[in-house]
Amino acid sequence: MNLTDPTFDNSPEQIDATVAAAAAAADTYAAADAATRAALLRGLADALEAARDSLVPLADRESHLGPARLNGELDRTAFQLRGFATRVEAGDAFAHVDDPAVAGGPPAGHPALLRVRQPLGPVAMFAASNFPFAFSVLGGDTASALAAGCPVVVKGHPAHPELTRATAELAAGVVKAQGLPAGVFGLVEGAAVAVGVHLVQHPAIAAVAFTGSFRGGAALQAVANARPRPIPFFGELGSINPVIARPAVLAAQGPALATTLAGSITLGCGQFCTSPGVIVLPDDPASDSFVDALAAALSDARPHAMLTPGMRANFDAGVAGWAATPGVPWRVAPTDGGDAPTPALAVTDAATFIATPALHDEVFGPAALVVRTTSVDEAVAVLRAIGGSLTVTLWGAETDDAASRALVRAAMQTAGRVLFGGVPTGVAVTAGQQHGGPWPSSTRAETTSVGWAAMDRFLRPVALQDAPAWLQRLGGRPC
Amino acid sequence: MNLTDPTFDNSPEQIDATVAAAAAAADTYAAADAATRAALLRGLADALEAARDSLVPLADRESHLGPARLNGELDRTAFQLRGFATRVEAGDAFAHVDDPAVAGGPPAGHPALLRVRQPLGPVAMFAASNFPFAFSVLGGDTASALAAGCPVVVKGHPAHPELTRATAELAAGVVKAQGLPAGVFGLVEGAAVAVGVHLVQHPAIAAVAFTGSFRGGAALQAVANARPRPIPFFGELGSINPVIARPAVLAAQGPALATTLAGSITLGCGQFCTSPGVIVLPDDPASDSFVDALAAALSDARPHAMLTPGMRANFDAGVAGWAATPGVPWRVAPTDGGDAPTPALAVTDAATFIATPALHDEVFGPAALVVRTTSVDEAVAVLRAIGGSLTVTLWGAETDDAASRALVRAAMQTAGRVLFGGVPTGVAVTAGQQHGGPWPSSTRAETTSVGWAAMDRFLRPVALQDAPAWLQRLGGRPC
Repeated sequence: MNLTDPTFDNSPEQIDATVAAAAAAADTYAAADAATRAALLRGLADALEAARDSLVPLADRESHLGPARLNGELDRTAFQLRGFATRVEAGDAFAHVDDPAVAGGPPAGHPALLRVRQPLGPVAMFAASNFPFAFSVLGGDTASALAAGCPVVVKGHPAHPELTRATAELAAGVVKAQGLPAGVFGLVEGAAVAVGVHLVQHPAIAAVAFTGSFRGGAALQAVANARPRPIPFFGELGSINPVIARPAVLAAQGPALATTLAGSITLGCGQFCTSPGVIVLPDDPASDSFVDALAAALSDARPHAMLTPGMRANFDAGVAGWAATPGVPWRVAPTDGGDAPTPALAVTDAATFIATPALHDEVFGPAALVVRTTSVDEAVAVLRAIGGSLTVTLWGAETDDAASRALVRAAMQTAGRVLFGGVPTGVAVTAGQQHGGPWPSSTRAETTSVGWAAMDRFLRPVALQDAPAWLQRLGGRPC
Repeated sequence: MNLTDPTFDNSPEQIDATVAAAAAAADTYAAADAATRAALLRGLADALEAARDSLVPLADRESHLGPARLNGELDRTAFQLRGFATRVEAGDAFAHVDDPAVAGGPPAGHPALLRVRQPLGPVAMFAASNFPFAFSVLGGDTASALAAGCPVVVKGHPAHPELTRATAELAAGVVKAQGLPAGVFGLVEGAAVAVGVHLVQHPAIAAVAFTGSFRGGAALQAVANARPRPIPFFGELGSINPVIARPAVLAAQGPALATTLAGSITLGCGQFCTSPGVIVLPDDPASDSFVDALAAALSDARPHAMLTPGMRANFDAGVAGWAATPGVPWRVAPTDGGDAPTPALAVTDAATFIATPALHDEVFGPAALVVRTTSVDEAVAVLRAIGGSLTVTLWGAETDDAASRALVRAAMQTAGRVLFGGVPTGVAVTAGQQHGGPWPSSTRAETTSVGWAAMDRFLRPVALQDAPAWLQRLGGRPC
């Protein structure tokens, strides 16, 4: 397949046909009971695992991510599909508030209200480049939308077109084998911006889920907002994921933390939305030693090639931007690593960081910026300058004191997930997860794209007032 | 007070100062415990009731809504404030998901996650003209934002400026008496569009709640989306609230239903967001009799004056638009009623309605359009043409048959609240309520502006990963 070949891009007519099939399937699939949806999700997980030996090498060829990581990611994707099956079986998609009538006039008296949730309809799902399984064709967005009762039209990522097509064929086979309408799952292919725009503009698309760059996401969100009938756009965009260390923790555990952090910065060649991009340190000798150790570990690291030449060019431009900024010297300068980039580490002070908005932008790849601070207030000011991030990691907030409380408050205002120790890469798929933070890290910080609450994005409440007995018996679902 | 006097409009500097006070109060108020928030909400309810004898006459002078309605509305407003106090005391704002660590590697193993909710920050609240108490200064948006832990900056509606100021002074007095920062409650005044725009654009405003016209709401939403940091815009806009009758119900109860429906159409001079604007009837003799009875009841009705001359002009333009549309004859033509408009009733067929988008727009005031249909499919097509509404009312869906199911499915896809019998005016403030439907009736159909779930709009999840013991002990709230 040749991506520069314009025939790779679906035509508007092809996209319309795919969306029309999804729209035609929407009522039937919204009416599907828990067992039907769970069987589909489990069937997809089974099919994915059964095709492991062909899919993982394909994914490796297209992504350079390596079989170990890709096998783990396939496990995670199957776990996620089965997890949503379990949640649907437990009734999550059909939960309702039963508010019986109260006799008497208003305001205290009221009619009977049964508050149920209605699937939104066909969801356009934009796959990510950096997780060819877990945030792609059968990833979390697809799994959660199917759990909610919504057909999915996947816009495949052109960085892994063969894997996309193979996974989509597998999914279509499961849908067919289970006797569901073909439109429950559809695929749109294309490298041109116009393909995604046409999909988002289609009147039958009811919501968009997107994982990718800030620039691409913001542009597509604007398209969603500008429709005659605007639709929700659930975008996970760029994030710089600050790590903030308090003095005592570096004095006690500096070397071990430096090794762990270097591993997180270079993991997957830094191509994670939760990759730590800003390291906020006190201005003290323990931090000096920590930076020395971090620099040494990064210098030793040899990341693999990036996912696409375009992402590599963006990374090179990002680190070039740091180099061109006064007051941001290199500790580990990027060098010509051939196919793969080499890790980069720069250092600056809080005043420079706060005053330079360009330094708040994500540099996607194996690079981090150390920001030295002279007080807790300055660390809080750094967080406020960042504004929004998927994660903030705090090292050394185990003691309950005024500084810990101030840092935790600021971290909770900045991020969707606050970590106490560890590193932000690695996002557990579970009930307590929140993968989504204030702008610019995501477009709907009140929702998550990872974890069981991701399903809530695709359901809308409806209050049934004085519902007749037959409808109550059906749990408010007139299938 | 003279609204055409430009000194009525707050200057940008005045607005900035009001928002700055809210921002300064945000951390303190977010940290306020349930007892503190509940005491504020109850204090506001008490103060409102204590000032009833001065506020109700003021409201009547400015709104023409009459003391009976306004006393009831004040009761509802106090009930709502106390209801949110009770919900806060029950822990709603502080609910969290405790997801303990699971040993082992991913995907099944994971760290401990405590998923809590974080108040968004200062909320700009745009008061409505048509509910000078319940959707104004101390209405549901204010009560729910305060319950969530967010300061509120009210943009008063210029249709009732004296009442707005009196209520705001009362609120400020309660805030002060309870020792809370003054910025917990603020008021911005102005009749110019620029006042609202400046408020929405202020960087410290974290969310907007709006009840009003489609045109005004859509314009302000565009401003919220275009900010450097976009913020959620919770808008309740226009809605035409279809009522759909099946044949048997009109044959059995036609005259009584006609009287009830005429009362709903003319209630408050039709100035309710849930006022029934489209009546979908079968093409049969029982419907003919029903329309005769409805026309007679409407002809006898004598609504009071509308809230503002501008709203009256919009109503006159709306009914003139019907008159200018071929195939939409009057059954009750509007006449010159002097200060007050007279009710209007027009009739058309489904094909004309579906093919004429202008007929899908709300005409705010005492007017309704009868749409005659020849089949259930045609009634469903009428709903699909409408697209989004706060409510759909079904008469005669008590029997479980294919037609009932098809109508209920279409109604649930169109509306936030589906009524089985009765009329859509009257929105109970309770747990099961959903006041918000698909576009264009509201901007965030997944949220409600009435009922206890309204508080959820102003909270955002944060996952605390491996939270230290002290923070767990505080329920994830580092106050």
